[in-house]
Amino acid sequence: MIRVAILGASGYSALELMKLLLRHPDAEITALTTRQTDAKPVGEVHPSLAGRLHLKLENLSTGQVAERADCVFCCLPHGASAAAVADLLPRGKKVIDLSADYRLDDAAEYEKWYGVKLPDAERMPDTVYGLPEIYRERILRANLVANPGCYPTSAILALAPLLRAGAILPSGIIVDSKSGVSGGGREPKPAFHYPECNESVTAYGVGTHRHMPEIDQVLTDVADAEVRVVFTPHLVPMDRGILSTCYAQPTGEFDEDSLLGLFREFYANEPFVRISQALPTTKQVSGTNFCDITVRSVRGRVVVISAIDNLIKGASGAAVQNFNLIHGFAETTALL
Amino acid sequence: MIRVAILGASGYSALELMKLLLRHPDAEITALTTRQTDAKPVGEVHPSLAGRLHLKLENLSTGQVAERADCVFCCLPHGASAAAVADLLPRGKKVIDLSADYRLDDAAEYEKWYGVKLPDAERMPDTVYGLPEIYRERILRANLVANPGCYPTSAILALAPLLRAGAILPSGIIVDSKSGVSGGGREPKPAFHYPECNESVTAYGVGTHRHMPEIDQVLTDVADAEVRVVFTPHLVPMDRGILSTCYAQPTGEFDEDSLLGLFREFYANEPFVRISQALPTTKQVSGTNFCDITVRSVRGRVVVISAIDNLIKGASGAAVQNFNLIHGFAETTALL
Amino acid sequence: MIRVAILGASGYSALELMKLLLRHPDAEITALTTRQTDAKPVGEVHPSLAGRLHLKLENLSTGQVAERADCVFCCLPHGASAAAVADLLPRGKKVIDLSADYRLDDAAEYEKWYGVKLPDAERMPDTVYGLPEIYRERILRANLVANPGCYPTSAILALAPLLRAGAILPSGIIVDSKSGVSGGGREPKPAFHYPECNESVTAYGVGTHRHMPEIDQVLTDVADAEVRVVFTPHLVPMDRGILSTCYAQPTGEFDEDSLLGLFREFYANEPFVRISQALPTTKQVSGTNFCDITVRSVRGRVVVISAIDNLIKGASGAAVQNFNLIHGFAETTALL
Amino acid sequence: MIRVAILGASGYSALELMKLLLRHPDAEITALTTRQTDAKPVGEVHPSLAGRLHLKLENLSTGQVAERADCVFCCLPHGASAAAVADLLPRGKKVIDLSADYRLDDAAEYEKWYGVKLPDAERMPDTVYGLPEIYRERILRANLVANPGCYPTSAILALAPLLRAGAILPSGIIVDSKSGVSGGGREPKPAFHYPECNESVTAYGVGTHRHMPEIDQVLTDVADAEVRVVFTPHLVPMDRGILSTCYAQPTGEFDEDSLLGLFREFYANEPFVRISQALPTTKQVSGTNFCDITVRSVRGRVVVISAIDNLIKGASGAAVQNFNLIHGFAETTALL
Repeated sequence: MIRVAILGASGYSALELMKLLLRHPDAEITALTTRQTDAKPVGEVHPSLAGRLHLKLENLSTGQVAERADCVFCCLPHGASAAAVADLLPRGKKVIDLSADYRLDDAAEYEKWYGVKLPDAERMPDTVYGLPEIYRERILRANLVANPGCYPTSAILALAPLLRAGAILPSGIIVDSKSGVSGGGREPKPAFHYPECNESVTAYGVGTHRHMPEIDQVLTDVADAEVRVVFTPHLVPMDRGILSTCYAQPTGEFDEDSLLGLFREFYANEPFVRISQALPTTKQVSGTNFCDITVRSVRGRVVVISAIDNLIKGASGAAVQNFNLIHGFAETTALL
Repeated sequence: MIRVAILGASGYSALELMKLLLRHPDAEITALTTRQTDAKPVGEVHPSLAGRLHLKLENLSTGQVAERADCVFCCLPHGASAAAVADLLPRGKKVIDLSADYRLDDAAEYEKWYGVKLPDAERMPDTVYGLPEIYRERILRANLVANPGCYPTSAILALAPLLRAGAILPSGIIVDSKSGVSGGGREPKPAFHYPECNESVTAYGVGTHRHMPEIDQVLTDVADAEVRVVFTPHLVPMDRGILSTCYAQPTGEFDEDSLLGLFREFYANEPFVRISQALPTTKQVSGTNFCDITVRSVRGRVVVISAIDNLIKGASGAAVQNFNLIHGFAETTALL
Repeated sequence: MIRVAILGASGYSALELMKLLLRHPDAEITALTTRQTDAKPVGEVHPSLAGRLHLKLENLSTGQVAERADCVFCCLPHGASAAAVADLLPRGKKVIDLSADYRLDDAAEYEKWYGVKLPDAERMPDTVYGLPEIYRERILRANLVANPGCYPTSAILALAPLLRAGAILPSGIIVDSKSGVSGGGREPKPAFHYPECNESVTAYGVGTHRHMPEIDQVLTDVADAEVRVVFTPHLVPMDRGILSTCYAQPTGEFDEDSLLGLFREFYANEPFVRISQALPTTKQVSGTNFCDITVRSVRGRVVVISAIDNLIKGASGAAVQNFNLIHGFAETTALL
Repeated sequence: MIRVAILGASGYSALELMKLLLRHPDAEITALTTRQTDAKPVGEVHPSLAGRLHLKLENLSTGQVAERADCVFCCLPHGASAAAVADLLPRGKKVIDLSADYRLDDAAEYEKWYGVKLPDAERMPDTVYGLPEIYRERILRANLVANPGCYPTSAILALAPLLRAGAILPSGIIVDSKSGVSGGGREPKPAFHYPECNESVTAYGVGTHRHMPEIDQVLTDVADAEVRVVFTPHLVPMDRGILSTCYAQPTGEFDEDSLLGLFREFYANEPFVRISQALPTTKQVSGTNFCDITVRSVRGRVVVISAIDNLIKGASGAAVQNFNLIHGFAETTALL
């Protein structure tokens, strides 16, 4: 039984993580932390967990966390996360970091996009990006996993097979993503105020979203050629889900069957990627760890469409998938 | 042309008010106020009004407002509203107050429910409650109108005809109301955070909502007997609309035709109340100043169901209706 | 391992049932039926199950079903369900019927509300109503369980403790329920067309809903006195969830603590009922088998508010709970 | 006073049209048609219009329509519309056709995309495409106006200024559009069933949507060079609104100010196009005839984002705008 702690347990990712881990036969949640000074029963912070998990959210030091847990899920804000991780790893803990702190390899790039210096920059280049479909072998040996961002997961899974096969040009790729509002976190803000975002669609962070360099980095690695996507996230009035519509220029003539074939081959052994001729919906992956993908050829462009649940495959489900990998459990445990 | 000012112009009621007044042939919006110190173009605060209204929201004194306007709509929070009104009336201005400050007749009752002493308590008992369907004659002669609350509008219009006719008992009335989220205002709060209230229904303020004494007071006046309703508001995942389902005990045997007849008679000359045998939906009154009502008889109980748009008939539409009445304009001007 | 068939597998209840059963260690889904003549892979009918369940929906006879399965979940329309059940029970199968066919004890009452004669009327009076919180002992011994309706589940669980304790009068009870749209089934109809029911709340079936006699029957049994509730269902723009607000007259003076105490005592050993002082939301029970309840005292009335997921505790979760009971599995298996 | 008929008055476009025309001082609605044989009061078909419009939807011949009206709005399905138009024009009526029948210049193209031969094909090439921002001069002289599709309106207004200025390449343009569900019409279908499309985003008609050739045709005309866009419509869980995110390759180096300048210049005198540096939302144009547009430069691509209300600027508002133009009324009458 792995004793598990969750740092920053009041948000949506943490809530989904708890729900998944409560079904995990080999994990036991033993500590939940909060920056608030008053300890609060989890059922007060997350009423859906009342009666299911008899723990409090406490303001614990990393030392206290290390005493109680073998493996730590970090749901802290960027910056705060690296500070905690840097303290937990030397204590022999395994860490799955859901923040952005270790996703980028390059400290300067991190500083440019996140506006702060990372406290633990030297660990960045060697930390594995926790997308099992791309980096499973490295994850298996890791003590620290940088859990991917939600948008990057949807974009990378949609584009990797084509870039790896050389079927599309690495330049000029467009990723147009539509996300539910839970992606914005649990803190009330005007943009996420119900009467503002209900019955409305809007783009945001056009050309400035922090997930853009993350997509670039992984796709560049996959393609072995520089990829710099044009990424436009949109806010859509629903709780959860991301649909990414990706546009790329093919390197030759491919019909849809051969394009689908590339995807089927690339993901042949993947338990959580489903390739289909039908157009995916976010609803069909809601509450699951699946990424559903299809591909079309339109007027000389390749159009790839992927759907994930931003809180599961885009966050907590992927985290449990990584948890399973680094501990040698069956990869789908607690995820089906 | 009546020059009009709106105090507290950044919220949803003020926005709807501006949209309605922009269609009013005899009103010109000349001043918009805000408590923020920086003046801001209305198109920045309300992007939907960009290019339509070339005013700024300014931090104006009541004296400055009085210079620019003949009639003032107060969309300030309770307490703040009375302070402004007390200063505007002696300057000869007409005021329509959308806050709760002058709705109750009794200062002690106000203090009990709102937790503060009203600065202008002596004016309370004589201020007319601005529900034209009940108090039109008094509104016609008023300089100050207390614009009704959204829930009370839906409940009073549903129950007044039956109480006036003595068809239901004044005791034991239940009002179960379902409201869209815009009723909670524009300030972000956890309860109105999109991922919290989307895909969820909840009751709130059970037995403690401030609209309860307002309903009591008017229905008591209408019935000429003490009415103390059990009022339960609910939050429903939609922008706007209130559906109130009211339960009462009949004083005799009434079939549905005779009950409908009572409503048709009571509202025979009302331009904004529609009686129908069909069950109303909030959608069919959305964006309008209508209140749609039906009545049923179920197992010895009378069930009345009313639907309004909380921002129009429940706030700004009623305010324009009152504006029309006190200035002698056709009552439906700008409202159809 | 219990081999399980689902009759009428194309709807929402069947989908939830499959998701739950896929997590059940002692159940194996072996047959899915449809009235359509073309067999279709489950992943085509329910894309969310693609890759998870390798079965087809087939037009099978009850004989064929009986060969493949030990236990049958009936998700057929009323009338059709009883015809199938009458054929399956003599073959030694256990049946959990999600239709309304065996819920009422009285054939005449069934005929009155459902407009058809039940083909298997003689079995009605002895069939247990599958609400474990009320009838667990009888369910344990049953071969056929009448799975409760969604609204009745929410209303009965809210009112049973008070009626059993004699704390409220059996007469004059009002149940005002708000339901998500999935309760209306999967067949497209004008009332469930997105642009009709989005951004709208409406009452329907006022005084005529078929769940009313079901509520009456069970509460009458619990109270040992005639109960005839006034039941008003409402349609709310969300996928799933029912919030029932129930109003009753207390038989004496009870403060909220003593009322809460009655609920805590009544449900002391229930794994799926949570009593709380806080007002429940449908979101906090969404996707779960929980029923969350609170109770308040308002102006001499008792107000009980309950929340369930209409597709889980209100249908398929309850069905799995009954499945566990009749097979001697732990009651919470696959439900947490 | 222009007497106005609406053919096919039971749908959403017709409803919006009636709401707008009821505010028009120079239009009187005198006939509403339906293909159903029973005449029905408009308030039964559209409860929101109860008490506002005392007409019935009747099964009228074009001859009967011609007797009652001077100007006809056609909201019939494609094919049916042309049959009616061909009969009305010779009778001296002015017609605004909201169907797709006269939008394309080329009969073969129409047949290819719509799968039927147009009954009135010879009139196609000379019929003006009713987008005032592009073809105002021709509309002013027209007796028949082909009212634009909703998606094309949003895409053409977003791209025309750049193509006209030669600032982007005519090839390789991508239009990624997100639409509310009312665009799918009022007839219940599985894809528009509330529990199917709520909480879900999906692409549809990828590479096959009938609005694609319409966008091509107008943009080709504007650019004076062949334009063939890659168009991907998406269904988003909201009632109304279209957000189109368009990607194009600039012909030179343009910063955002100069790009915005091109738009401001092109639309300098347009009453219904608003250019802003801020990212538009569909909410801010909901219920209005405005098209809000911004433009950004991202990694060497031009990204234009436009927002309209699909039922107003994308259908009925544009129709009234055209009505105003062909009758010489102020263009904004009934639209502000």
